[in-house]
Amino acid sequence: MKKLTYIITLVLFVSFQILNAQRAPRLSSPDVNSKNDVTFRYYAPNAKEVLLSTEILEEQLAMTKDENGIWSATIKKVTPDIYPYSYKVDGIEVADPNNTYVFANERFKRSIVDIPGNKPLVYSLRDVAHGKVTYRYYDSETLNTTRRLLVYTPPGFDRQDKTKKYPVLYLIHGGSDTEETWTKVGKANLIADNLIADGKAVPMLIIMPYGNVRPSPMPDFTKDVMNDIIPFIESNYPVHTNSENRAIAGFSVGGGQILNIGLTNTDKFSYIFSFAPYTATQEFAQNFTNWNPDAKKINEQLKLFTISIGKDDFLYESVQGNLAMFKEKKINVEPIFVSGGHTWMNCKLYLTQSLQRVFK
Amino acid sequence: MKKLTYIITLVLFVSFQILNAQRAPRLSSPDVNSKNDVTFRYYAPNAKEVLLSTEILEEQLAMTKDENGIWSATIKKVTPDIYPYSYKVDGIEVADPNNTYVFANERFKRSIVDIPGNKPLVYSLRDVAHGKVTYRYYDSETLNTTRRLLVYTPPGFDRQDKTKKYPVLYLIHGGSDTEETWTKVGKANLIADNLIADGKAVPMLIIMPYGNVRPSPMPDFTKDVMNDIIPFIESNYPVHTNSENRAIAGFSVGGGQILNIGLTNTDKFSYIFSFAPYTATQEFAQNFTNWNPDAKKINEQLKLFTISIGKDDFLYESVQGNLAMFKEKKINVEPIFVSGGHTWMNCKLYLTQSLQRVFK
Repeated sequence: MKKLTYIITLVLFVSFQILNAQRAPRLSSPDVNSKNDVTFRYYAPNAKEVLLSTEILEEQLAMTKDENGIWSATIKKVTPDIYPYSYKVDGIEVADPNNTYVFANERFKRSIVDIPGNKPLVYSLRDVAHGKVTYRYYDSETLNTTRRLLVYTPPGFDRQDKTKKYPVLYLIHGGSDTEETWTKVGKANLIADNLIADGKAVPMLIIMPYGNVRPSPMPDFTKDVMNDIIPFIESNYPVHTNSENRAIAGFSVGGGQILNIGLTNTDKFSYIFSFAPYTATQEFAQNFTNWNPDAKKINEQLKLFTISIGKDDFLYESVQGNLAMFKEKKINVEPIFVSGGHTWMNCKLYLTQSLQRVFK
Repeated sequence: MKKLTYIITLVLFVSFQILNAQRAPRLSSPDVNSKNDVTFRYYAPNAKEVLLSTEILEEQLAMTKDENGIWSATIKKVTPDIYPYSYKVDGIEVADPNNTYVFANERFKRSIVDIPGNKPLVYSLRDVAHGKVTYRYYDSETLNTTRRLLVYTPPGFDRQDKTKKYPVLYLIHGGSDTEETWTKVGKANLIADNLIADGKAVPMLIIMPYGNVRPSPMPDFTKDVMNDIIPFIESNYPVHTNSENRAIAGFSVGGGQILNIGLTNTDKFSYIFSFAPYTATQEFAQNFTNWNPDAKKINEQLKLFTISIGKDDFLYESVQGNLAMFKEKKINVEPIFVSGGHTWMNCKLYLTQSLQRVFK
C-alpha cells in the first residue's frame, strides 16, 4: 500500500506539472523592493510588443523580452501609493495574470500595485483594531430590483451597547466603478480604521452602494438613495437619523451625483464632500441651471460643503465653473485644490481629508 | 449664467465623448436571451484571430469580426449554470472588459457568465431573506501575518437573541483561488440563503478563509485553521464549540487540505466534505502513508464523511485511490459520483448537497 500511495502521488504530481505547463508560468509580478523600485513581468513568448501602462508614469513603457518569453520592465523610486496598471500586448489591454488584485470596474480589467514604502501610510494595513466590511442586498423599489451595497462598521461595533448610535457617511464611486471600488482600490475601510485608531476620525458607518443606473436616467439613483438605501440602513443599523449625523461623498460621476442628492436635500445631510465631480449631466442641469436657492438657509443647514479637485484633473476647469456657480448663488463651498489628476490615488487623499472633518 | 452653464455642459459632454472614444467601445457582453443562447463580444479591430474559451464547450470557438472591429460568437441552448470564459486574442488570454464579474483567482483573469434559465436555481438571487457576507481581518500567529476571511451569517443573525448559537462550516477554496472564490464564483451565500429559506438547510455560519500559504509549507494552513481561525471565530461569534456543530469542506487543493485538517482532528469536526480533492502533497503523504487509525473511534466521531468527484474530473482516478485507502483503513467514507469535471459548476452542486446534510 505504501508503494501504491507513492506511485499515485508521483503520477498525480507529474499530471499537475503537465497541467501547469499548459498554463503560463507563475511569475512574481509585480515585485516591489525596499527602494520602491517595482518590476512588472508578463509571459508572452509570441508577442511582438508589450507596453506597460501605469498611472505611475504618464507615458507607456516598452517592456523587454528574455529568452524564456518573459517580458519585464522596472520603474525606480516610485512614490508610495496604490496605482492601476495594465499590459498592452500587441495592442490588447490585459490585467496582470499573476496579480490577484483587479481594479473593480465595469469597463476595463486592470491590476493594481501597492508600493508600501518604509513607513505606514494612512491606507496601510496596520496593527490596529479593524472594522468590518459587509456585503448586503437591499430591495430597491425605485429601481424595481435587488441591489448590493457594502457597509463598513467601525471597530467595536458589535460589542457596543445597543443604545449607542453611529453617524453615517454615504460614499459613491465613479462612473464605471462598482460598489467594491471604494474598498478594493480606495481602501476606505483601512483609512477609516487608521484614522479612528489615531483619534483623527469618529467611529461611523460608511455605506458604499452601487451607483450606476442603466438604462434608467440618473435621477433614479437620487431616488434610490433617498427612498431605498437610507431607509434600509436606518432600519437595520443603530444609527442617528438627524441631518447632523448624515454625510454624503462621491468621486467623478459619483461626485456629481452627490451634489444632486446633497444639495436638493440639505435638510437631510449636513456634510457634502464632492471629489472631482462630473456634472455634465441632465440631472445637474435640471437642478442647478435655474436654481434659486435660499442660500442663507442652506448655509445654516450645511456644516461643511467641499469640492476637491486635482490641478491636473481633466475636470479642473469644469469644477472652476461649478465653484463660480455656487459662489454666484451665495452658497458656502470650500474648494480643496491638490496636485495630481483624476485618479484613485487622489480619491484616497480626498477621503482621508473628509473623514477627519466630518461629524465634528 | 444659464448660457454659460449650457456651454460648460456641452464642452464637458464632448470631452467625455472624446475620452470614451479613446477607450474601447462599451459593448453588451455577454448577452443571454430567453432561449439560453449566449453571445460574447470583444472589440479588437487589429487582431488576426480571436478564440472564445469557455467551460460550456470543450473546444474553443473561433469568433468572427464585423466591419466595426467587434468580434462575436454565440453558443445556443446552454444549460443554465455559471461558467468561466476568456478570450484568446492572437494567443493572449484576456477577461471580457465589458463584464464586471471576474473569476477570483491568483493565476488567471477570466470572466464568468450566468445563464439563469427560466426558473430559479439553487444559487439564484431569489426574493428570500438574505444572509450577509462580511470581510474580516484576523491575526495569524502561525503565519505571523494578518489575513482575510469571509464570514457568511444567515438571515436573522443580528436580530437573534444572544443566547442563540450557530453551527459553523469552514469552507476552503481551490489551489489558486482566493477567499472570495466561494462567494463570487461558487455563490455559497446564495445557496445557503435559498436552502435555509426552503427549510432544507439549518441556519449556520460559513467561514471562508484564504487557504494558500506561500512560501510556507502546506501543514502551516492546518495549524492556521486549528490555532488561529477557529479560535478567532469562536471568540467573536455566538457559535457552538462542540464537534457536532463543526464541519469542514473544501475543493481541489482545498479538498485535500480539509482531509488533512479534518481526519487528524476528528475530535473537533463531526462532518468532513471533500470535493474533488487534490492529495499529491507532502502533508497528505505524511499523514496517511503509514496511517494506523483507530477506525472504530473515528467512525463514531464522524457523523458524515463524503468525497465527491465528477466522472470527467482529472482527479477521478486519484480519488478512487483515496477511497481505496480509506476503505482499507476501515474508515467510513461515502463516495459521491456526479457527472462533469474539475469545475466550479460542480462545486456549487457539491456544496448544495453537503449543506442539506450537515448539522442534522
